Amino acid sequence: MSTSSEAIEAVDAFLERTATERLEEFKAFLRIPTIGVLSEHDGDVREGAEWIAARMREMGLEHVEVSATAGHPVVYADWLHAEGAPTVVVYAHYDVQPVDPLELWVRPPFEPRVEGGRIYGRGVADDKGQLHLHLWAARAWLETQGRLPLNIRYVFEGEEEAGSPHFEAWLEANTARLGADIVVVTDTGFYEGNQPALTVALRGNMYLQLDVTGPRQDLHSGGFGGMVQNPANALVRILSTLRDGEGRVTIPGFYDEAPTLSDAEREEFARLPFDEADFAARIGVPELFGEPGYSPLERKGMRPTLDICGIWAGFSGEGSKTIIPAHAHAKVSCRLAPGMDPHKTFERVRAAIMAVDVPGVRVDITQLDDMWPFVVSPHHPAAQTAVACLREVFGAEPYFVYEGGSIGAVASFDRVLRRPIVLLGFTNPDDQAHSPNESLVLSNYEGGARTVARYWEALARS
Amino acid sequence: MSTSSEAIEAVDAFLERTATERLEEFKAFLRIPTIGVLSEHDGDVREGAEWIAARMREMGLEHVEVSATAGHPVVYADWLHAEGAPTVVVYAHYDVQPVDPLELWVRPPFEPRVEGGRIYGRGVADDKGQLHLHLWAARAWLETQGRLPLNIRYVFEGEEEAGSPHFEAWLEANTARLGADIVVVTDTGFYEGNQPALTVALRGNMYLQLDVTGPRQDLHSGGFGGMVQNPANALVRILSTLRDGEGRVTIPGFYDEAPTLSDAEREEFARLPFDEADFAARIGVPELFGEPGYSPLERKGMRPTLDICGIWAGFSGEGSKTIIPAHAHAKVSCRLAPGMDPHKTFERVRAAIMAVDVPGVRVDITQLDDMWPFVVSPHHPAAQTAVACLREVFGAEPYFVYEGGSIGAVASFDRVLRRPIVLLGFTNPDDQAHSPNESLVLSNYEGGARTVARYWEALARS
Repeated sequence: MSTSSEAIEAVDAFLERTATERLEEFKAFLRIPTIGVLSEHDGDVREGAEWIAARMREMGLEHVEVSATAGHPVVYADWLHAEGAPTVVVYAHYDVQPVDPLELWVRPPFEPRVEGGRIYGRGVADDKGQLHLHLWAARAWLETQGRLPLNIRYVFEGEEEAGSPHFEAWLEANTARLGADIVVVTDTGFYEGNQPALTVALRGNMYLQLDVTGPRQDLHSGGFGGMVQNPANALVRILSTLRDGEGRVTIPGFYDEAPTLSDAEREEFARLPFDEADFAARIGVPELFGEPGYSPLERKGMRPTLDICGIWAGFSGEGSKTIIPAHAHAKVSCRLAPGMDPHKTFERVRAAIMAVDVPGVRVDITQLDDMWPFVVSPHHPAAQTAVACLREVFGAEPYFVYEGGSIGAVASFDRVLRRPIVLLGFTNPDDQAHSPNESLVLSNYEGGARTVARYWEALARS
Repeated sequence: MSTSSEAIEAVDAFLERTATERLEEFKAFLRIPTIGVLSEHDGDVREGAEWIAARMREMGLEHVEVSATAGHPVVYADWLHAEGAPTVVVYAHYDVQPVDPLELWVRPPFEPRVEGGRIYGRGVADDKGQLHLHLWAARAWLETQGRLPLNIRYVFEGEEEAGSPHFEAWLEANTARLGADIVVVTDTGFYEGNQPALTVALRGNMYLQLDVTGPRQDLHSGGFGGMVQNPANALVRILSTLRDGEGRVTIPGFYDEAPTLSDAEREEFARLPFDEADFAARIGVPELFGEPGYSPLERKGMRPTLDICGIWAGFSGEGSKTIIPAHAHAKVSCRLAPGMDPHKTFERVRAAIMAVDVPGVRVDITQLDDMWPFVVSPHHPAAQTAVACLREVFGAEPYFVYEGGSIGAVASFDRVLRRPIVLLGFTNPDDQAHSPNESLVLSNYEGGARTVARYWEALARS
């Protein structure tokens, strides 16, 4: 058996000489349109799961299984021959966001291409690239050393973009084979400017659909205007009462459990390099905007929000169609700060919506998603070890960041396995996850594989 | 030459024996999808115009012309051999509304069918049936008497549903051949319960599109929520300031020129049979709704409105897509009461929109339509003669009604020709113009042709 540093050298050399093969295999993975939230892609999601399982079998992982859930399957595999070494559960997801508006993609979303040091396509960053680099970190160890430095159980989900509706039940049904010392979740990324970082907090999410129903069908706005409630006007009225003009949510009790930042936390946020004007220019807005009394990074990391993710009613074509729409709809997302409860938030939002007096229409509310927020300690040894590996591979001191997004699986791991969780991810914040022209910086992808390969060895030693 | 009553008898008998041929010809006309506001149907609109011109030539009308405008053509024809008799300009339109939502049509909108005494299809009522009955009223005279009782100039428009953007210019360019004693416009209908009626007022219309633009593309609502203005939230905020919860428009000056009803007018409205609960049930709403202090019929006939005809932003698919949309849009229609000015109204609405403080986004407003309101006197002899013909054919005392819709061409005739205008139309209010499953009661269509044939003779005599 080679020494630690000899092994790392061999692993790095393997990753170096297999870069082209890895990229081609990654492209094949990306070409499968695993859009989990659209049922017409159910077959593609299944194909994605089988594709991963096939790669795992080829490289020598064991107990490979496309494991059924009430929704899309979980891909499971393990390697448990490092006696005396710790055991890690590794999480990533193979489902991706929908692609609309399709017309804004420069190239088709499922025909990946490399350009200017980046690979473009739906899911490259969120989260197929991060899943794929885990496969190759393990393969590098297995092919050069015939072993992994520790025991690993891979758990790759297919419903993350749908809010992981069946993942917690799957975890509960599989606790017997999920014994572990730590959980490593790879679905986060670096800090602005592509600075290496470890994520220490995630916001939760509460997502609902609001349906306002009026007349049996669209009515002529001349013949009926002034006689009936307009569902689109009623919807607008309801939504306008939920947030004020400054971006403050006006729902009673909404902020009750949200953290008010300590001076120490505010100093921590202030240390992060952030140029507000530059950030605004980069995303193409005249200025940043949000709840008064907090900096943009504080708002993103530690404060809840209420955003309309979609709204639709009536005519959206060319010219002027003079109708009163029969119905109107909106999708609303509340990001939840650490300490907040998605169920309590849903009840408060529902009560606020139902309290708006809109005569002449029916109002229905459906909760579509539900994710708990999460915080981890940057002082845990497994986190510190991850930071050391990031520093070594990427050559810069990593930041600790409060991520605004949500990963439902993280809260589920927390509740079911009750083990420390490290959020080790490698994407650049400008990768446009969830948007057209999603990309991944290739050096992050390659550095990610090397960081993970090192991390297994460092955890085994620590 | 036969006497008046002999002539009418012959005309009626002709219409009686040609009913089947007329219906088949009507269906052929309906099969041409003349959706004027959608440019992909430009060829169909042209075909519709040529179809009318061909029928006019066949029946012996003269100077038949598909006359160019800056948009869709006007179909013109005349018959001017009734020396000493009055001259009438007849207006109807051959363009139709778009058909979405297509999935709500029981049968395809351009495959007309007869069922239960009605004919179904897009444009049957608004306004192709009303145009077509004019052709047959004239044909009945020409085939049985070899003449018309008076001089007629037909003017059939192809851009009514787009707000008649080029019609006034066409009128101005053609005043030399439009000399007339009265104008008869056939684009209105009967009173609730299919009671014969003559329309004496039309509301105007001001239609605009509101575009709110935020980030360059859709953003992840987790990674960016709380940092940037959401264009959909901003749009909702703007729209919510335009109307209060009771349906009252809150734009400064909006009602300044709107009429406050006299006691006599209120009595006139109160005389019209109207069962509020029944009306609500028929269109499928729990209750009627609108500006306080006015009855539903008063609101529809004499008060302005502000309705959202369409709104769209972000994700409207299945499930939950967590984005901040890059842009958000709405189409808004204001129906204008007699006395109001669409230009003044547009400026007031624009000022109110621009006064809403929505930092972090760009707001653009485009006026798409512009129609003046109109009132005619029910005491004019030409109106009284029309009422007598309606009474004779339909066997009931006609009502005078204040119609909520708009006909831009009417205001144009008023400004350019300055002749009395009679709004003589035959549709049933429940025909679902502008909605899926538009229909026309066949006895209204047939009675319409007989009323018009009588009206020409009665006007010539009066």
